[in-house]
Amino acid sequence: MAGNTIGELFRVTTFGESHGRAVGAVIDGCPAGMPLSGSEFTYQMERRRPGTRAFDTPRKETDQVEIFSGVFEGKTTGAPLGLLVQNRDVDSRPYEILRDLYRPGHADFTYHKKYGHVDHCGGGRSSARETAARVAAGVVARKILGPSGIALTGFTLELGGIRAANIDLTTVESNPFFCPDPAVVEKMEKAIQDARDAGDSLGGIVEVRASGCPTGLGEPVFDRLDADLAKAVMSVGAVKGIEIGTGFQAARLRGSENNDPILPHGFKTNHAGGILGGISNGDEIILRAAVKPIPSIARKQETIDHRGNPAVLRLTGRYDACAIPRIVPVLEAMAAIILADHLLRWKAFGANGEKEADI
Amino acid sequence: MAGNTIGELFRVTTFGESHGRAVGAVIDGCPAGMPLSGSEFTYQMERRRPGTRAFDTPRKETDQVEIFSGVFEGKTTGAPLGLLVQNRDVDSRPYEILRDLYRPGHADFTYHKKYGHVDHCGGGRSSARETAARVAAGVVARKILGPSGIALTGFTLELGGIRAANIDLTTVESNPFFCPDPAVVEKMEKAIQDARDAGDSLGGIVEVRASGCPTGLGEPVFDRLDADLAKAVMSVGAVKGIEIGTGFQAARLRGSENNDPILPHGFKTNHAGGILGGISNGDEIILRAAVKPIPSIARKQETIDHRGNPAVLRLTGRYDACAIPRIVPVLEAMAAIILADHLLRWKAFGANGEKEADI
Amino acid sequence: MAGNTIGELFRVTTFGESHGRAVGAVIDGCPAGMPLSGSEFTYQMERRRPGTRAFDTPRKETDQVEIFSGVFEGKTTGAPLGLLVQNRDVDSRPYEILRDLYRPGHADFTYHKKYGHVDHCGGGRSSARETAARVAAGVVARKILGPSGIALTGFTLELGGIRAANIDLTTVESNPFFCPDPAVVEKMEKAIQDARDAGDSLGGIVEVRASGCPTGLGEPVFDRLDADLAKAVMSVGAVKGIEIGTGFQAARLRGSENNDPILPHGFKTNHAGGILGGISNGDEIILRAAVKPIPSIARKQETIDHRGNPAVLRLTGRYDACAIPRIVPVLEAMAAIILADHLLRWKAFGANGEKEADI
Amino acid sequence: MAGNTIGELFRVTTFGESHGRAVGAVIDGCPAGMPLSGSEFTYQMERRRPGTRAFDTPRKETDQVEIFSGVFEGKTTGAPLGLLVQNRDVDSRPYEILRDLYRPGHADFTYHKKYGHVDHCGGGRSSARETAARVAAGVVARKILGPSGIALTGFTLELGGIRAANIDLTTVESNPFFCPDPAVVEKMEKAIQDARDAGDSLGGIVEVRASGCPTGLGEPVFDRLDADLAKAVMSVGAVKGIEIGTGFQAARLRGSENNDPILPHGFKTNHAGGILGGISNGDEIILRAAVKPIPSIARKQETIDHRGNPAVLRLTGRYDACAIPRIVPVLEAMAAIILADHLLRWKAFGANGEKEADI
Repeated sequence: MAGNTIGELFRVTTFGESHGRAVGAVIDGCPAGMPLSGSEFTYQMERRRPGTRAFDTPRKETDQVEIFSGVFEGKTTGAPLGLLVQNRDVDSRPYEILRDLYRPGHADFTYHKKYGHVDHCGGGRSSARETAARVAAGVVARKILGPSGIALTGFTLELGGIRAANIDLTTVESNPFFCPDPAVVEKMEKAIQDARDAGDSLGGIVEVRASGCPTGLGEPVFDRLDADLAKAVMSVGAVKGIEIGTGFQAARLRGSENNDPILPHGFKTNHAGGILGGISNGDEIILRAAVKPIPSIARKQETIDHRGNPAVLRLTGRYDACAIPRIVPVLEAMAAIILADHLLRWKAFGANGEKEADI
Repeated sequence: MAGNTIGELFRVTTFGESHGRAVGAVIDGCPAGMPLSGSEFTYQMERRRPGTRAFDTPRKETDQVEIFSGVFEGKTTGAPLGLLVQNRDVDSRPYEILRDLYRPGHADFTYHKKYGHVDHCGGGRSSARETAARVAAGVVARKILGPSGIALTGFTLELGGIRAANIDLTTVESNPFFCPDPAVVEKMEKAIQDARDAGDSLGGIVEVRASGCPTGLGEPVFDRLDADLAKAVMSVGAVKGIEIGTGFQAARLRGSENNDPILPHGFKTNHAGGILGGISNGDEIILRAAVKPIPSIARKQETIDHRGNPAVLRLTGRYDACAIPRIVPVLEAMAAIILADHLLRWKAFGANGEKEADI
Repeated sequence: MAGNTIGELFRVTTFGESHGRAVGAVIDGCPAGMPLSGSEFTYQMERRRPGTRAFDTPRKETDQVEIFSGVFEGKTTGAPLGLLVQNRDVDSRPYEILRDLYRPGHADFTYHKKYGHVDHCGGGRSSARETAARVAAGVVARKILGPSGIALTGFTLELGGIRAANIDLTTVESNPFFCPDPAVVEKMEKAIQDARDAGDSLGGIVEVRASGCPTGLGEPVFDRLDADLAKAVMSVGAVKGIEIGTGFQAARLRGSENNDPILPHGFKTNHAGGILGGISNGDEIILRAAVKPIPSIARKQETIDHRGNPAVLRLTGRYDACAIPRIVPVLEAMAAIILADHLLRWKAFGANGEKEADI
Repeated sequence: MAGNTIGELFRVTTFGESHGRAVGAVIDGCPAGMPLSGSEFTYQMERRRPGTRAFDTPRKETDQVEIFSGVFEGKTTGAPLGLLVQNRDVDSRPYEILRDLYRPGHADFTYHKKYGHVDHCGGGRSSARETAARVAAGVVARKILGPSGIALTGFTLELGGIRAANIDLTTVESNPFFCPDPAVVEKMEKAIQDARDAGDSLGGIVEVRASGCPTGLGEPVFDRLDADLAKAVMSVGAVKGIEIGTGFQAARLRGSENNDPILPHGFKTNHAGGILGGISNGDEIILRAAVKPIPSIARKQETIDHRGNPAVLRLTGRYDACAIPRIVPVLEAMAAIILADHLLRWKAFGANGEKEADI
């Protein structure tokens, strides 16, 4: 398997390159009879779209999702959904330098070694542009989750070392950073501006929460819900770490501190992040992803050319200074895809959980 | 898919419960002609086996691996390998209390809600006992990796908050904690003893490194090597977080700090942990797993019974005070399984990498 | 994928060789809470077992199915079912000749070329012995189908050119050939005896019918119910052809003859064999398999040795003269496995069919 | 899995409906570095395209394949190939009657029962139009097979009961029926004309041969080459039967007749159809498919409407009178896809066969 499909029952296959004709997704496993129109994708696609914020890359993508197949008279038919996002405003000239030089921190080196023949324009298949297809697929996943009451919220927990302290999820959409702490928004903005001024870039930490999950999603022992979420989140280019619930901090707690006592109405705490034994426990699912700083920077970098000679790379072109906030809807989408997949799997094997799915 | 299989070409399916007749694995996708005998499993099984250390659970398992199928006159035939580890010294009496009570931090609650009918003895399928099958499968995976020069080393980076400072991999096997820093071994031992005396348990952080990987392992965009490693590692019961290379710390670096400059002879640094764009870059692969404290503790805990009534749980029985060090060979095995799988996939699609696999 | 697994949600992986320790199956995807005991396998295992009929191979297998995992206190837990059939009465001496000679019509040649290292004893993995594991898995599949009212019947339509003319399914189990036409049983018996006397073997045609299928099983466009049945049936060693409904005869009908008119209470005819567009239509599912004559014959045969030199093979040992009737329960089992798999898939994606599944 | 993907390593997912915007395929698992351009699809697409023959449906499709992704500067990159065939000349008016009536012999009934919401225009997803995507994918598969010397030829063995007697493969492309016996072409033409005049339709038998296969393709015990071919061929709408080599006739032979003697230079006969034990034996692979008469006929038919009331259907519109010859390239494509998939699998697990693949 060449790796461009995720999900077992809700299967998403993405295709397309940054500077090719389009990126898109084929979704096989979308239940029939679900209303779906192209306009429903707009909100999430806008959240991911570059060029909507002052600090964004100036590339203008309209990112309209066209439905090619699988919908008839406004409803899904159970046939594969074909989703297409055409590429616009493609300018490959700044990438000519990549015909011969590897960008440090990028996939250029490994793609070239693995495939021999690579589309270097704008990163080709390894570009963040590919995530537009994931966000589109995530919209469909969310529609499957909705009737079961499952809702996802992602936000920026930390950016360039500045951490949200007082988390108020109602403020997430009211600032361009998807930051849940209004008090640090200005600092985040300044941090990005400073990095950009220095020809440099920043990373951060994104948290995604899923509320309303029934007890019982996840298939032990390998296709655990946390394991599948870990794969899905780690499959996003800039992500270098993933944790569930208390995560790495749990390594420093004692069992008596980390165990969540069980009360008649639910769990007293949620160190587990909503997952026990790989199966959702009915509590809120909480995951965090470590996002590395964007490798495309204006500063000079040591590298080699395709023949192995030392070289200096100085990138020009249009880049974000941080994958955050645009990566937030991408990570939400990945979590949504996994949850939708496991909701279907749960239905297949019988749902003994207390809260029945309703899709 | 009910989730008990991992790998696409090197496919490992585990089966068996803690207090049933046996745990085991069927491996489909082991190349033919590879010498293999039951004794080759002994070393790794011993590293995982309880009862070999002063601080271990007193359960005595012999953990001998029997080969049921797939080997003829000492060599693999290409047919499915059947590996069986019979359960011995099984005492289910201490688990009678679990017929009616959920243990906080355990899979009891979610398994019961999901499946209705559960084997509660010793944790049944959710027991760490299942990992014996993984370690056995890992031995086979390592044999596939060996001829390509790929070698794995796991060690305890941190235990109960005590961190290895000066890492010397040659010392890992010379102490019972797989700790690479002899200077802290005594402190780790004391930490475990203190926790045990307090009826409590500890967590920690395990690091696994793979050296000798050719450039080119990993299939973008979903079956990236890092994504598959993340899933495999997170599928181990006690793991709550996974990071690659600099991991969560990368979130606080700038691009100019985190990018690994490329020199003619290789990468100058290895923040990437050996993986770029989801594909191995020829450098050492480095991952870390956050291991939560073992939830089975002697201290009293709040919980509920199967009818939802509040209850107090006081566990007696034989438990480890920390999943480390026994989890170290398990995590190595999971990494080995993923690498073996990707090595086979790499062969299928043509190996343009600089270093050819030789299996 | 090395090919020893069938099914997507109801996944059956078989392992084991003819003269090894055992053959068996791991079933991942069996719903929890289903009563299951070893004795439930006896009836079907007896139908497949050699040595129960006058004309059978004299090998004595007891073929008792042991449940290794996945059942607790008499009910399935949702964990993988481990089924084991130990090999008894194994005599490898007659196979020594196969260390160096290929048997015409057998897998010897291709296994040796593909794998290099082969277990030649009794056919090893390619032996009909492997089908014992299939029959065992089929018993579990039937238990999943039962509550939905789906029942399977297989019978010998033709043996050595002698065809059942007046089909009365109530007579199938009352003769050793699973022949539905008592009038031809004696002729079949004589045909087998004649072939055996001539040191030769026979083939035939087996029909399998499944009644009670709800409308809606099968996933277009590739995982059609008929396509998956075709694969499953063709995966049985001796099968060289498979047809659905009117099958090859349909190639000679006109559309007006072959189309099944639709009446308010159902279909007027069943040329379609219960499947339209790859999806069950609520009518009886009908398939037929062409079974080739057993290649192991006592007559002298031209062959080559492993170095390519011409040789003459004269087999001694214990062989059936026809794969029928023992193959009948195997083909039933394969159909049951596919139907159980599709029943689970149907539940995952929502069951809009008129008759709801009840498992 | 919702069933729209075939292949394990060479994975073809089709999408699209007859009267939607397009049909297409995403191929994941095409090796990198293979030259590929849109014009290479023309020849095979023309062979399948309607409207090229006197007796064809008058629908005019141009059937040009657009490559959406996975090719850069004329060569494949290893990324998913996106292939698109836009629909032209779409006239849905004749299908308005299908909003309420089921066509006998079609998928209308089962799709409606399964999915509730169906695209009825031109058969929607169940239309033969979907096979355009298969033929396009087959072209890519053939390019993978080519360097290994594997070549496919399909032809019409029988049409409306008229059978090719003297088979000369060099004549196949010289007549519109892909008939290998020039002596019966005129009879076939008359048979089709007669059926059409009677408002009726015909079926037939198609044979596909693959020459040049190395020994060793196919994975026992379930993913046998013959089993996978059987599934792939049976997944084509009009096919109701499939046989390998001597097929159903083998059921009437004795072992001594059906076994292919092995000589130093190869097999003396080819009753096996090139496959032994599910693995290619180096001889020509031979399969035959039974093609039912097209169910869309002008004659009045009994049916029911969506509420279950009896009705009479009289179709008008543009239909072929026989799926042959247009189905011939489709069946070739399906065989090519399976062979390409198994060629990649063979490379993954090591190729001990005598003839090495060269891709």
